[in-house]
Amino acid sequence: MLTGMSTALFTDRYELTMLDAALRDGTAARHCVFELFTRRLSGGRRFGVVAGTGRLLSLIRDFRFDEAELRYLRDEKVVDAATVAFLEDYRFTGSVSGYREGELYFPGSPLLTIEGSFAEAVVLETIALSVLNYDSAVATAAARMSIAAGDRPLAEMGSRRAGEHSAVAAARAAYIAGFDATSNLEAGQAWGIPTMGTAAHSFTLLHDSEEDAFRSQIDALGVKTTLLVDTYDIRTGVETAIRVAGTDLGGVRLDSGDLPIVAAEVRAQLDELGATNTKITVTSDLDEYAIATLAAAPVDAYGVGTALVTGSGTPTAGMVYKLVARQAGDGSWVSVAKASTDKASKGGRKAAFRTLDAGTATQELITVSDGFENVPSAGEFPDARPLQAVFVTGGEIDTAYEGAAGVAAARTHHARVREELPVRALALSRADPAIPTVYVDVD
Amino acid sequence: MLTGMSTALFTDRYELTMLDAALRDGTAARHCVFELFTRRLSGGRRFGVVAGTGRLLSLIRDFRFDEAELRYLRDEKVVDAATVAFLEDYRFTGSVSGYREGELYFPGSPLLTIEGSFAEAVVLETIALSVLNYDSAVATAAARMSIAAGDRPLAEMGSRRAGEHSAVAAARAAYIAGFDATSNLEAGQAWGIPTMGTAAHSFTLLHDSEEDAFRSQIDALGVKTTLLVDTYDIRTGVETAIRVAGTDLGGVRLDSGDLPIVAAEVRAQLDELGATNTKITVTSDLDEYAIATLAAAPVDAYGVGTALVTGSGTPTAGMVYKLVARQAGDGSWVSVAKASTDKASKGGRKAAFRTLDAGTATQELITVSDGFENVPSAGEFPDARPLQAVFVTGGEIDTAYEGAAGVAAARTHHARVREELPVRALALSRADPAIPTVYVDVD
Repeated sequence: MLTGMSTALFTDRYELTMLDAALRDGTAARHCVFELFTRRLSGGRRFGVVAGTGRLLSLIRDFRFDEAELRYLRDEKVVDAATVAFLEDYRFTGSVSGYREGELYFPGSPLLTIEGSFAEAVVLETIALSVLNYDSAVATAAARMSIAAGDRPLAEMGSRRAGEHSAVAAARAAYIAGFDATSNLEAGQAWGIPTMGTAAHSFTLLHDSEEDAFRSQIDALGVKTTLLVDTYDIRTGVETAIRVAGTDLGGVRLDSGDLPIVAAEVRAQLDELGATNTKITVTSDLDEYAIATLAAAPVDAYGVGTALVTGSGTPTAGMVYKLVARQAGDGSWVSVAKASTDKASKGGRKAAFRTLDAGTATQELITVSDGFENVPSAGEFPDARPLQAVFVTGGEIDTAYEGAAGVAAARTHHARVREELPVRALALSRADPAIPTVYVDVD
Repeated sequence: MLTGMSTALFTDRYELTMLDAALRDGTAARHCVFELFTRRLSGGRRFGVVAGTGRLLSLIRDFRFDEAELRYLRDEKVVDAATVAFLEDYRFTGSVSGYREGELYFPGSPLLTIEGSFAEAVVLETIALSVLNYDSAVATAAARMSIAAGDRPLAEMGSRRAGEHSAVAAARAAYIAGFDATSNLEAGQAWGIPTMGTAAHSFTLLHDSEEDAFRSQIDALGVKTTLLVDTYDIRTGVETAIRVAGTDLGGVRLDSGDLPIVAAEVRAQLDELGATNTKITVTSDLDEYAIATLAAAPVDAYGVGTALVTGSGTPTAGMVYKLVARQAGDGSWVSVAKASTDKASKGGRKAAFRTLDAGTATQELITVSDGFENVPSAGEFPDARPLQAVFVTGGEIDTAYEGAAGVAAARTHHARVREELPVRALALSRADPAIPTVYVDVD
């Protein structure tokens, strides 16, 4: 349901007017290298987690202008007839490489490298940034929550606090970065993510009594379900839950109150009633700090909503899409970069490696080359892990990174590379990046 | 391109499992009143601005489970066969009323009232909240920026900093709340919003010189275009711009630096060069506070990105969807509400009025009734403006609120009702709501 539609107008107008001008003056054909990266880790994060790439690849496949879109561009005089004709046949035939989803990133990490003619590559700027900026912001927040939660399972429940499509992307990003399940059914269908859920207060209020509601839920979902016990009085709710379900009840959910205290009281009450295996799930406005505070409380699982889907204070990752090298009129390569002091960026094509010492990351090593061919191979940095994979070659997308299989692989990759983080990266407070970014000129 | 797809899985799993249980025990048929409201104005806002309703109405029309979705629900055993059969025929046949888009809101304002059987109304919870929470957060931030900008035009340019679909919703919400244009082409096509754009640094870097780039842009877009002058040195950029374009140049854009100082320097330089009508647009990480700071600077227009699409620190509006009244088994009406101390809500059906004193809002007056019929009419509060409109009757959507026409009407409505705000509501600092919410029991 989320595929096959044209994605071509998820685009800032200036991408097409720049194309229009470049087609007129001939520079549209110049071969270009764009890089997508962030200048800093927003929100004082110690690391970032890449997400969205697999989603973006499918969106690039669907980046074809349909008739209604072309008519709109013509009628609104956004571009001229020659540019409309170009867009009519548009499909991306260049190449894309970059960091795999789930990979960690640091300031300057070349998360995506997009190569092609200026015409083909410039128009992907907006959609590439939309996807990577949101999804990576959520994945980064999710990884911090996952670190705070330790072995306790985490469920994503934030759909209602994000735009309806972003909600699906958030569930996907959270799963890649260590969450175990989502409440979002579209994320389940589209991306193969396990879905879960309990019940809302409205279900209890619909019934003539809490007992009726609990009995109905157990009749439908079995005794291993999780009952929401805080609609009226929590102590009474727990008592009713065990009376109705018996001591095999799967779990109870707490969605209000001072959670460390309430969780301890509920645990004691459940144990007293003999329901020693009944789990406690908490869900009230949690973020990574609240989760850390609950580490010593008798909580078995967390449900996280608002903070997750809004990036826990950092709702966008601050990535940019910059031209770093291009061909000159004579075919030679030129490194290019904006010079403005507060937003300067580093020209030249990058290759990226993570140096490791006994398995622990020590540096984000980024080589910079003027030319197209001078890219170092992994062999030149034997103690470093090369960070870039090839996603698109000559317009052909490697489908291994797409769909549910891509998500599953990304989740595994993230779990593995997170092990490389130095211990100081696991703290939640604001700080500098956990490892430095080091540039090496290779020309 | 954004319509016609099924929206039925933009839904939390528990909506469908509650439905499953309620279908088994017979309560699914109970007539219910759900309300969508917020308990407080997140972020210390003095008022909120409703957005998303028109979008939501179309999404409700498309809330039909397609075959692949039904198969998913069956294969994953989310619900039983009887519930799948119910969902196969699902379409909302109830009614929806509430605040028009662009309307102001305060704590407790019943932004939407959804009536129907529990079965029909409960499943709309997630999508209704996704849409209203995001869109209203953006609209509220946009209104604050619009107040700070005064008569200077505001363009929305944040697509790259929000999920690709949320970007379109953000452009729409910003336009309703007072922005003048967007960079997002899909927002232009889908919602009839004026689009605009200048050029990116990549366009200058693509060319062999800044002069080549400016000449190309002027050849394509004419002399009234806006040139981006900060890729290298701003003073040189301005000089080149006027040399190439002449003194009729439409505008220059500044995207970096200490804007009040730089804008003053550029204005002086433009005036010296005789380009006294050339406008200055600024676009570097603006929010309502930065815009207010620039009030005395010679700036002609603002472009706002990140802060707009992330709600300027409040990326979600904190709205909830609560069952407030239902029929009992005997057909009588019962007001219901959760009792938990920190998240208590007020049961009973609400009607809402804004009391006015000489045209200035004084109270959000909300009447509360147990029953279905005891809703006060506007005539009972002659000095108050009734705030609710009817959007859906017996499943039939009033199309006046949808599409581009709905957006245009919402924008006009917002401009009108914003005039009712007391002066203290226009300050940007965190504070209590500008007017109190007053409940009146009418039973």
